[in-house]
Amino acid sequence: MDDRECLDRLDSTATDTEDLFEHFERRTAAGRTYHALPNARHGIERGTIVIEDTVVRGYPKIPRILVIEAGVPSFFENELAVEEKLDGVNVRIANIDEPLAFTRSGYVCPYTTARAKELLAPADFFREHPNRMLCVELVGPETPYTTHDYDEIDSHTFCVFDIRDRESGEPLPVLDRRELCSEYGFPQPRLFGRYRPSQAIDGIRAAIEMLDAAKREGVVIKTLNGEKMAKYTTKSQHHEELAYAFSLPFDRGRDFVFSRLVREAFQAAEFEADDDQLRKRAHRLGEAILLPMVETIRDTANGRSIGEQFTVRGSPEQIDALLEHLYDQSLTLEINEITRENDEQIVEFVKVAEATRDQIKYYLEEGVHRD
Amino acid sequence: MDDRECLDRLDSTATDTEDLFEHFERRTAAGRTYHALPNARHGIERGTIVIEDTVVRGYPKIPRILVIEAGVPSFFENELAVEEKLDGVNVRIANIDEPLAFTRSGYVCPYTTARAKELLAPADFFREHPNRMLCVELVGPETPYTTHDYDEIDSHTFCVFDIRDRESGEPLPVLDRRELCSEYGFPQPRLFGRYRPSQAIDGIRAAIEMLDAAKREGVVIKTLNGEKMAKYTTKSQHHEELAYAFSLPFDRGRDFVFSRLVREAFQAAEFEADDDQLRKRAHRLGEAILLPMVETIRDTANGRSIGEQFTVRGSPEQIDALLEHLYDQSLTLEINEITRENDEQIVEFVKVAEATRDQIKYYLEEGVHRD
Repeated sequence: MDDRECLDRLDSTATDTEDLFEHFERRTAAGRTYHALPNARHGIERGTIVIEDTVVRGYPKIPRILVIEAGVPSFFENELAVEEKLDGVNVRIANIDEPLAFTRSGYVCPYTTARAKELLAPADFFREHPNRMLCVELVGPETPYTTHDYDEIDSHTFCVFDIRDRESGEPLPVLDRRELCSEYGFPQPRLFGRYRPSQAIDGIRAAIEMLDAAKREGVVIKTLNGEKMAKYTTKSQHHEELAYAFSLPFDRGRDFVFSRLVREAFQAAEFEADDDQLRKRAHRLGEAILLPMVETIRDTANGRSIGEQFTVRGSPEQIDALLEHLYDQSLTLEINEITRENDEQIVEFVKVAEATRDQIKYYLEEGVHRD
Repeated sequence: MDDRECLDRLDSTATDTEDLFEHFERRTAAGRTYHALPNARHGIERGTIVIEDTVVRGYPKIPRILVIEAGVPSFFENELAVEEKLDGVNVRIANIDEPLAFTRSGYVCPYTTARAKELLAPADFFREHPNRMLCVELVGPETPYTTHDYDEIDSHTFCVFDIRDRESGEPLPVLDRRELCSEYGFPQPRLFGRYRPSQAIDGIRAAIEMLDAAKREGVVIKTLNGEKMAKYTTKSQHHEELAYAFSLPFDRGRDFVFSRLVREAFQAAEFEADDDQLRKRAHRLGEAILLPMVETIRDTANGRSIGEQFTVRGSPEQIDALLEHLYDQSLTLEINEITRENDEQIVEFVKVAEATRDQIKYYLEEGVHRD
């Protein structure tokens, strides 16, 4: 398709083609060339892709509720559904001759693509619904991008939380989507309930308290037509993210920390009426910040690897393609261990956090900070 | 003096006069016009002032030691003195026909000027040393800029921690300066000791532990000639600053928090060999972050004033001049109480933290965050 047609189909706010297309990056994967938008621009979502004659729209950013009691009734006017939000990697799967998995920022991930084909077997679905995309969360301890553990998941799995028109991004209504997922046997997130906005507050609080006790991430709240969405997360998620950020303070800490602390404070103000509970929560928060940061300083002093550790499994070809994909993104990897189980390789590797390693090393050797 | 002469006297790295002077701001105070450099540029310190024929150089930024054991021997080669660092406002007092007090960013503060004349009575000093400036910390609960309490200070006092040539910025050697302060009866910070760099580590640690127990700020370490300096602060100071920042999270938090957490982590890694101690420290840290932020959210919900509270005392003219000076800097003040003691007015006021108040109000009403 030509640029003008593409611009019309994207339904952008840009006035001319150049305005928008200068922001797209040209990439290749598995012998295909495609164009991806690395950041949201002109009303087009981050990660939107143009590949051959097909547009695959990025997944929209979900606004966050900071105060349940105010946010739910002010943000939603119509009946809503509350579903679990899982802590994994948001990937879109669309069929372009074959199913391809696109990451949030619009990369084709060969590993995720291969695993999705095996685990979701989406061929039947795409035969019936060629213009739809599956919006899935890749979750579990064995993924190359995230490491949140779920008791029920040993390796990794895909959970379909949305089905959309791949070009317009228009979602299926929540209940239709859930029925379709059942029909095709796709795993899907828990549905906590349907509520009128003013009646949802207690239900959301109860869901959050239950999820927090199980150390799970939170909820996504959607109007029944699937169009309006907001998210709300648990205390344990805030603390886990802060612990992660402060284990790599110079790679993640600075950008990451303030917004998490603000979430945490608004939730504490809403949930912790009791002063002792509030103080205990503050103690857990302090531990989430200080202990991982001190551990990373000590690990650096002791010459240990500094970075996030991942485990992935797949055929030797899948593993090779993944590692190449990660190297292409200029990541520094340390491969720690490769084992074999039947036909699969299991590879443990560290994504090296160079800024954290180098800066801490500098402070430990020079000991002085000039800002 | 003309610009070229001024540039030469400033000893700047700028190549021509325009290069440097475009960064100076023209200000007036008490009928005098002066030029001030609001940020460090071309090798000239922030707060440097040109007033009539006189240059008053800004006080240099002091590098910070993050790791005592590495920092002290790597940063210092020669014998050093360890003195207490007080938590107050850094002000330079120079004699330009009369003593004037300049803040760090180069404002003439009428209140501080008046209080310095009364409390330090520097006329004799300036008669003998017309080209020197007194570098002082204004400390105590009754100042318009800082509110750290010291047990021994009821209202406020000035503590002379440096004496420099006002134009070149060259400091007096530490022991000469201390003798001169004694001679003129100027209060001065505690001297903890003199050390060879390799022997200073234990002395500094002991001083820091003692200061921390008394909830005081920290130390400044200087070579005996006064030229090379570094600072190191206590845990209680880190926690106090974080509590302050998180009591006004949208005015102070974002810029402030990361550097304080880094200091805190390096100190914890160096001081807390014991895991239980480290965990306790993490608990205090968590309290310093969460409790003030939740309190501010609740105060906003209850319609209370959001901001820092100050108390100042002085003659009605001094108080008026101060308030005018603060209004000139576009601060929003709420005057809470004015009382009288003999000839002095005592005024309590709040510097309103508008960003924090407005943003929290928005979240409490709308409850949603779109970033």
